Amino acid sequence: MKISELGEFGVIALLNAMIVEQRTGADNASASGFRLVVDTGDDTAAWKTAEATELFTTDTVVEGVHFTRNTTPWSDLGWKSLASNISDIAAMGGLPLYALVTLGLPPETEVEDIRELYQGMLRIANTYGVALVGGDMVRSPAMFITISLTGVHPGQPMLRSAARAGDEIAVTGLLGGSGGGLQLTLGNPELSGEAADYLQRCHRLPEPAVAQGRTLADHGVSAAIDVSDGLTDDLSKLSSASGVAARVYIDRLPVHPLLKQAFPENFLELALNGGEDYVLLFTAAPELMRSVLPLLPVEAAVIGEAVSGEPGQVRLVDPLGVESVADRAGWDHFG
Amino acid sequence: MKISELGEFGVIALLNAMIVEQRTGADNASASGFRLVVDTGDDTAAWKTAEATELFTTDTVVEGVHFTRNTTPWSDLGWKSLASNISDIAAMGGLPLYALVTLGLPPETEVEDIRELYQGMLRIANTYGVALVGGDMVRSPAMFITISLTGVHPGQPMLRSAARAGDEIAVTGLLGGSGGGLQLTLGNPELSGEAADYLQRCHRLPEPAVAQGRTLADHGVSAAIDVSDGLTDDLSKLSSASGVAARVYIDRLPVHPLLKQAFPENFLELALNGGEDYVLLFTAAPELMRSVLPLLPVEAAVIGEAVSGEPGQVRLVDPLGVESVADRAGWDHFG
Repeated sequence: MKISELGEFGVIALLNAMIVEQRTGADNASASGFRLVVDTGDDTAAWKTAEATELFTTDTVVEGVHFTRNTTPWSDLGWKSLASNISDIAAMGGLPLYALVTLGLPPETEVEDIRELYQGMLRIANTYGVALVGGDMVRSPAMFITISLTGVHPGQPMLRSAARAGDEIAVTGLLGGSGGGLQLTLGNPELSGEAADYLQRCHRLPEPAVAQGRTLADHGVSAAIDVSDGLTDDLSKLSSASGVAARVYIDRLPVHPLLKQAFPENFLELALNGGEDYVLLFTAAPELMRSVLPLLPVEAAVIGEAVSGEPGQVRLVDPLGVESVADRAGWDHFG
Repeated sequence: MKISELGEFGVIALLNAMIVEQRTGADNASASGFRLVVDTGDDTAAWKTAEATELFTTDTVVEGVHFTRNTTPWSDLGWKSLASNISDIAAMGGLPLYALVTLGLPPETEVEDIRELYQGMLRIANTYGVALVGGDMVRSPAMFITISLTGVHPGQPMLRSAARAGDEIAVTGLLGGSGGGLQLTLGNPELSGEAADYLQRCHRLPEPAVAQGRTLADHGVSAAIDVSDGLTDDLSKLSSASGVAARVYIDRLPVHPLLKQAFPENFLELALNGGEDYVLLFTAAPELMRSVLPLLPVEAAVIGEAVSGEPGQVRLVDPLGVESVADRAGWDHFG
């Protein structure tokens, strides 16, 4: 069977099972005082030391799959490739620390382009207090960028598996902007004006929610994930890991007026399935939610609730109160 | 200018300079009590916490560049791709802990092949006490495997920059076996017999020198690197980083009789430039060398000495005492 037939999630499930089954238990980490608290299957692994919880994540972009040179300036590509990793650390409430950068490059790549790529990467690294400390460079027929990033958390990381029926579901910021920017870039790259500028900025220079993640974790929120693959998809992952279903009121989704203006027909579709917004999606019991929401940016909003039901199912409630089950519209790399 | 014109080492030097110049200094790591001790430019980064020194490395193999499916069984590919990372941790005297595995895969990849790849990876992970704790899987026109690996060291990591003129230079084990195995695989894959079996095992299932690295570090050796790109090349890197030249007596290079038997004409060339042997190359003052050498496998040998001279220059002394400067025959990915 080919991996395109089994699908990305099938392959991942199979490999995660192999990894856990075949583990002998005699590992250096346990012997050295490290205790694994988030194992394979999450976007980020985590272990406790005597001092803190350490975090470890990696993310990759491949030319022609995740980006094209024509539509993504090199410095933005550098920014974005580190942003997705920082967001995985933010989702646990951690601080990002050290990054290793691997570049797969065709030999005819221009040195100047790689300099610009690094300019973008260094800009976001400095903005978020990340230190680039090395990496690897290899020849490759297709360009790719793999970044691995460590992080630290003073206490208990937020987990995607910690949502409970009865929790409210919220996001820390606006949805759909990055998806709108991508559509503009693909369909109408010459467009300018306030809406185009806003949306393209959302798409090209997303701002991972590290400060918001720290705030949530500090105030006792225990369930979170970042919105990288799209709200519906990431909410489904969180709900599935937590063994709950989710109900989302689509008229509560926070979207920017400029997104509505540019996409009056399908701004909700972009908010639900656009991806790469890198806000955090979290749940909390109503009382806790009331206390943390005022600490977040004004765009943060409660959008629904976790309910008993089929784990991972996301139900959408339209403004008339009609409920339907959302398609899982996320990204299958091999589908 | 294209990166193939500037060359791998030129590009790396340029990027390392950018990284260090543009660092603002306000990083989360320092603020969280982490202190960087090995920065960008090494195979492995290292920082101190209150408890220990933590290590962080990454390595990538790309189909058609570092391996071909025809000549490398999947499980061996899994073993080797983790081995090169473990060896980078071993070179500092550390213990490998946690690995993230990124696979770039064409959609037509067979699931069974990926299972075998993981079998090999899990076998070496269990052998060396490494826990696989996650990763990423992406579609890619060319297959690649990127692994990032953390490690820990109870004290001061060995560095490639710590060799001093007057030190003796030694290796922890046999040289040239992996290069011999590769030549057999490419030229005469059907060959069997004792020599072929030994050499192919060296090439396919290399054994990183973690225990030897721990021994060296525990007994006060401060300068080491692993032999991944070839003895001459890696010795040149160590010498260059340490500001010394190196003299190697080629009749002292430890090689297996089966390598000599299979390659009577060019076993020395394989020992000098074959690569992927994953033994450690280290230096120590003569007195220290006398005390640590008996603690190593019997194949370990003093092969030369660090001397004042052009940093990075490697001089080879033949059995008649004639000295010549070695070509830097290492691997330039873009050359």
